[in-house]
Amino acid sequence: MIDFTFYSPTFFAFGKNAEAETGKLAKRYGATKALLHYGQQSVIRSGLLDRVETSLHEAGIETVRLGGVVPNPEASKVYEGIELGRREGVDMVIGVGGGSAVDSAKAIAAGIPYDGDFWDFYDDKKTIEKALPIGCVLTLAATGTEGSNSSVITKVEDNQKKRGIGHNLLRPAFSVLNPELTYTLPAYQTACGIADMLAHILERYLSNTPDVELTDRMSEAVMKTIVNQGRIAIREPENYEARAALMWAGMVAHNDILGVGREQDWSSHQMEHELSAVYGVAHGAGLAVVFPAFMTYTLEHDLARYAQLAHRVFDVEPDFGNLRGMAEEGIRRFKAFLKEIGMPLTFAELGAREEDIPMLASRVYLTNGDLLGFFQPLSRDDIANVYRLAL
Amino acid sequence: MIDFTFYSPTFFAFGKNAEAETGKLAKRYGATKALLHYGQQSVIRSGLLDRVETSLHEAGIETVRLGGVVPNPEASKVYEGIELGRREGVDMVIGVGGGSAVDSAKAIAAGIPYDGDFWDFYDDKKTIEKALPIGCVLTLAATGTEGSNSSVITKVEDNQKKRGIGHNLLRPAFSVLNPELTYTLPAYQTACGIADMLAHILERYLSNTPDVELTDRMSEAVMKTIVNQGRIAIREPENYEARAALMWAGMVAHNDILGVGREQDWSSHQMEHELSAVYGVAHGAGLAVVFPAFMTYTLEHDLARYAQLAHRVFDVEPDFGNLRGMAEEGIRRFKAFLKEIGMPLTFAELGAREEDIPMLASRVYLTNGDLLGFFQPLSRDDIANVYRLAL
Repeated sequence: MIDFTFYSPTFFAFGKNAEAETGKLAKRYGATKALLHYGQQSVIRSGLLDRVETSLHEAGIETVRLGGVVPNPEASKVYEGIELGRREGVDMVIGVGGGSAVDSAKAIAAGIPYDGDFWDFYDDKKTIEKALPIGCVLTLAATGTEGSNSSVITKVEDNQKKRGIGHNLLRPAFSVLNPELTYTLPAYQTACGIADMLAHILERYLSNTPDVELTDRMSEAVMKTIVNQGRIAIREPENYEARAALMWAGMVAHNDILGVGREQDWSSHQMEHELSAVYGVAHGAGLAVVFPAFMTYTLEHDLARYAQLAHRVFDVEPDFGNLRGMAEEGIRRFKAFLKEIGMPLTFAELGAREEDIPMLASRVYLTNGDLLGFFQPLSRDDIANVYRLAL
Repeated sequence: MIDFTFYSPTFFAFGKNAEAETGKLAKRYGATKALLHYGQQSVIRSGLLDRVETSLHEAGIETVRLGGVVPNPEASKVYEGIELGRREGVDMVIGVGGGSAVDSAKAIAAGIPYDGDFWDFYDDKKTIEKALPIGCVLTLAATGTEGSNSSVITKVEDNQKKRGIGHNLLRPAFSVLNPELTYTLPAYQTACGIADMLAHILERYLSNTPDVELTDRMSEAVMKTIVNQGRIAIREPENYEARAALMWAGMVAHNDILGVGREQDWSSHQMEHELSAVYGVAHGAGLAVVFPAFMTYTLEHDLARYAQLAHRVFDVEPDFGNLRGMAEEGIRRFKAFLKEIGMPLTFAELGAREEDIPMLASRVYLTNGDLLGFFQPLSRDDIANVYRLAL
């Protein structure tokens, strides 16, 4: 185990009708005027935005609305939110929706008190020193942004640069999680969320740090639950218990309680980011394509770890003389699960093109000097090879 | 899953020499003068108290010392701390030691700003509305107080009343966890800590709430790790990895991440409190005696749950036609493990007397109206029967 700090100060209100708590929670964190930030019309049509606004008004908090966040949220909307928030003098930003609305809300919350271009934070030029308190009313179990320190924004006008950052000031002050709000999600989006959560855990699970039994076992527990309950949620979209398990699992998968004390990888996320940036595919779908390819490519790097994953999460029978066989069977079952819930597994299904691979590989943001990731650090050639395994 | 809130805002600094961070962390939470609260001489002899004090002084924070907290910490010391803290004008209370020092520090932190007798909080007469920020430098992995909302204090002069409370204002602002500080613990105390952690999880695990796969699996993951790493720590007291796993597991076991969304029991803790109060035994040792007895007594209440525990934590082979046999074998293995690490299993080993059982049963604080606990609520007769099973 390596030394670590862990800080997850978010107050979570979880359950049926939890959104009615928004006003009380916002008040507790000192809000007098909140920017309500959301994406498409669905939160308006469903009445959710009105309910949240009513709860805030009843707590004596004024509101300003800003909608129009798109999947893979864009810097242009963040600039708009910062300008609006400053003009209106808001002292809290509340994202209502999925990861995109909340990630965009986080960027606005950091940008409002900053005397420069918020993109400096995402472009590794500056560190956040101050942010408005952030609230979250979640409608999609996937990115874990409701409890995480991260936010990912795309700068369309700068060659579709997609950049993620992590900072404790980006952890929401409070998050409201009502599993019923996810009932109406299309099966495809539910499945993308499932793929995303599993990826958040696997990025931490694939580690070279020895002696991490506790976080290994906890990670396996959460992955196994996501697989079991994910299947149910796809089959029965209004099954409260399955939706509730997924919603809480999405938070646990990414607030870093499963990542403490271990080196983490995060190369598949970087490789996926370019698929999203170039083809506009959903993050979870891109991960479903990239992650099994990455696992296949790095199988030999730690057969024992892959065999353990195969056994403990995908019920592959131990075969101690044939760890490679176990590891391969584990990846096969992982892919079969992703396919079962409706995820793509290949470039073709995603609409990505083989001839773009050199371009994609050249775009990937390298996180480890000249290399990508930490489990088995990848050169640009390796990255291209991983993409090829996903053809 | 039932509706819940979850809030664990503590900042954890974990690793070798983590205590050197104390000053920086205390400053971040606004301290200018801190009460350093501790127990026996060991933190002085080891130099830990000096190191913590130096770190605080280097951060420009004044300190006042108050030692002498005893195991099963007493109200009299809390009164002393409140008086000293007020006189000295401290604005933070830092517990340095195990659960006793930190629980006492929590009571002092709540008592200083309260215009009445702090015991009102523990006697269910008042709710805490304000507390000084609390710091923790942990030397013992056991009670989970470093991340929990709880504090247990005994009022000797009031018939040894031992009362625990839970309030989010009692969660430490920061906790410093250095596994090396636990190297010198006697094996007996290490084992008591292990029994206490397992009990914290089992009190939550024994639940009537259906559809709790996520918290079930996470709980099993942590219990299995505690058993595995506990064995190692007893055998090799200076094994960093085992000590580190236990130290973090102790936090996870009790900050309630394993308890959210489910009804919890907590009857074994109440039954143990009377053993500690009357015979002065270590809390973990008392739990080792009471918990298996409680499990045996309530076996029929949920054979499937006990069989699941037996299989997933104690590796009992599934035998679907004989859940009772599996459940019993699970308890046998649990007891064998406790015995292996040096814990008592009977009243006799604890120095408790059969003839005291009616008196003990009459003392137990009932948490569920006229009954105790929520898994299989116990009458006073049931409580006496549980004690008898531990003879």
